[in-house]
Amino acid sequence: MTTKRTEISELGEFGLIERLTQGFPLRNASSVFGVGDDAAVIDAGDRYVLFSSDLLLEGIDFDLVYFPLKHLGYKAVVVGINDIYAMNGTPEQLTVCIGVSAKFSVEDIEELYAGIRSACEEYRVDLVGGDTTASVNGLTIGISVTGNVEKDKISYRKGAQINDIVCITGDLGAAYMGLHLLEREKRAFAGNDSPQPQFEGYEYLLRRQLKPTAAADTVASLHAAGIVPNAMIDLSDGLASDMLQLCKSSGCGVRLYLERIPIARETHKMADELHADPVVAALNGGDDHELLFTVPVTLQSKIAGLGGIDIIGHITPASTGAKLVTPDGGELSLTAPGFKDNEPE
Amino acid sequence: MTTKRTEISELGEFGLIERLTQGFPLRNASSVFGVGDDAAVIDAGDRYVLFSSDLLLEGIDFDLVYFPLKHLGYKAVVVGINDIYAMNGTPEQLTVCIGVSAKFSVEDIEELYAGIRSACEEYRVDLVGGDTTASVNGLTIGISVTGNVEKDKISYRKGAQINDIVCITGDLGAAYMGLHLLEREKRAFAGNDSPQPQFEGYEYLLRRQLKPTAAADTVASLHAAGIVPNAMIDLSDGLASDMLQLCKSSGCGVRLYLERIPIARETHKMADELHADPVVAALNGGDDHELLFTVPVTLQSKIAGLGGIDIIGHITPASTGAKLVTPDGGELSLTAPGFKDNEPE
Repeated sequence: MTTKRTEISELGEFGLIERLTQGFPLRNASSVFGVGDDAAVIDAGDRYVLFSSDLLLEGIDFDLVYFPLKHLGYKAVVVGINDIYAMNGTPEQLTVCIGVSAKFSVEDIEELYAGIRSACEEYRVDLVGGDTTASVNGLTIGISVTGNVEKDKISYRKGAQINDIVCITGDLGAAYMGLHLLEREKRAFAGNDSPQPQFEGYEYLLRRQLKPTAAADTVASLHAAGIVPNAMIDLSDGLASDMLQLCKSSGCGVRLYLERIPIARETHKMADELHADPVVAALNGGDDHELLFTVPVTLQSKIAGLGGIDIIGHITPASTGAKLVTPDGGELSLTAPGFKDNEPE
Repeated sequence: MTTKRTEISELGEFGLIERLTQGFPLRNASSVFGVGDDAAVIDAGDRYVLFSSDLLLEGIDFDLVYFPLKHLGYKAVVVGINDIYAMNGTPEQLTVCIGVSAKFSVEDIEELYAGIRSACEEYRVDLVGGDTTASVNGLTIGISVTGNVEKDKISYRKGAQINDIVCITGDLGAAYMGLHLLEREKRAFAGNDSPQPQFEGYEYLLRRQLKPTAAADTVASLHAAGIVPNAMIDLSDGLASDMLQLCKSSGCGVRLYLERIPIARETHKMADELHADPVVAALNGGDDHELLFTVPVTLQSKIAGLGGIDIIGHITPASTGAKLVTPDGGELSLTAPGFKDNEPE
């Protein structure tokens, strides 16, 4: 332990990553793109290999009180492969590393792998390796994924152009509301005042939290339509944070229209019940695993024709910043927790 | 948690991995080889991409009482990239995922990354991504590596041929003895009866534990000599376990000559001091990160000419099992903890 002590919370996750990954030049000719996108890009001759890793820790990223191991295995794969889809690529191989404490039985870990197997089947990804180790406390899951993309089809975070339209798939905030619902039932169960969980009418929220869908269909329909997004990012940290990441990478600003952000009926209903703001869930909730991308405005009708994609704003010069336009025409600065210097100007 | 409960210890690590990875077919044409070697093999057109992942957990794989964070970062990279060398390949990219509890400061994690950076420079590997997350307890490190190898130069574990000679680089058991030395000083320090650690004369053992060397030079000299091993494996679990893995994969037996196993002078000396058997350290200690490989007996003199490589035995038919020949001509069965059904017959 060193003398000076700066708390990690002072920097935030993004600040820490930036500080740590300074001074790592790319030395190999095959390293096309390194830190700073959903996946790294490796030149493999006629195409790019994409490469990405995630770490999921018990007590931080999941709570096994309400997260069934089988669903956890499935979700870990979805989270991992979505980083490849977010580059407009196709995931093909994954490794799974697990650290397991003595509280887990072989049958427990088999449940986890049943979920992994199910997701591998659904998304046609091959489990090709990994590592199994003991752990002192709880369950640790490391997922690394490789995939590929044709060189002229890759979408980085950095390619957004001024006047591009900003598109998102699916709806936002539901996974976050699902998490709140599960947390509420956990507290109720602990107090024994609710022997049966009250999930009726909220199955959609639970599914979004416990069994999310990877973006395979979106990427397939973009391919089929011959559309290569100028910029794309996986929506994992919440729309606000991920939009700001994309703007920062592309050196641009954005105008998002609040009333265009798609929010499911169940998300509104749950937010009412919890006296919460569904827009906050959509902006900052995270765990949506939808895609956020930009395309030239000339493709607007083509995008509309694909279905399941909403146009929520447009890209502006960096000097105008990242703005959120309210239904009454007011304008807010888009901000996100852990994100400093949001305003590019 | 499920009804029936089998303890993971009943299966052992290898048994668990075998059980978990059953039922994972390789569906993608690009997936050439999956679970069961040091790295997975992906077809990238004119060459293979190699892909491997490791997980290192505080309290299990390392003890920060005596393991400096900078050395830990360096070692994590060495452990990761050695899986690529063990396929006779060249590591080129890596991702680092860390889970960090509140006890660590930004400066601590910078120390860890200084070690990662140093190893990346030394072995010309590019840090291209990763993930940073909070953790409830301690430090978690996930390292994933990609590399490549020409298709006609790859060495699997499975390729050993009867009458091949068995070769190893470096010496064995030193890292294990270094660990014992560090553990002894930790206990002494806890009891305050030794204010200064007693490491004099044992610097080699400490270096083997705290700053191991990856097998870059071995792979380079094999390439230069035009030698492609029939089979190869990274020595990470101890000679006994890794030799048995190679035999199992290749469907062969082996005869190893006990007096030919290279053991450093300091390892012998430390073993004397601890009243331990240096051969046990060499066979079961692990963490050596040397390469074990087999080549046709016709290459014996060529191998001898490379330097730093010892020939410790030869490959036999599976029916004769895996044997250890003692200096008096006696024969023992080679066994390893966590390895069941060692005898192929």
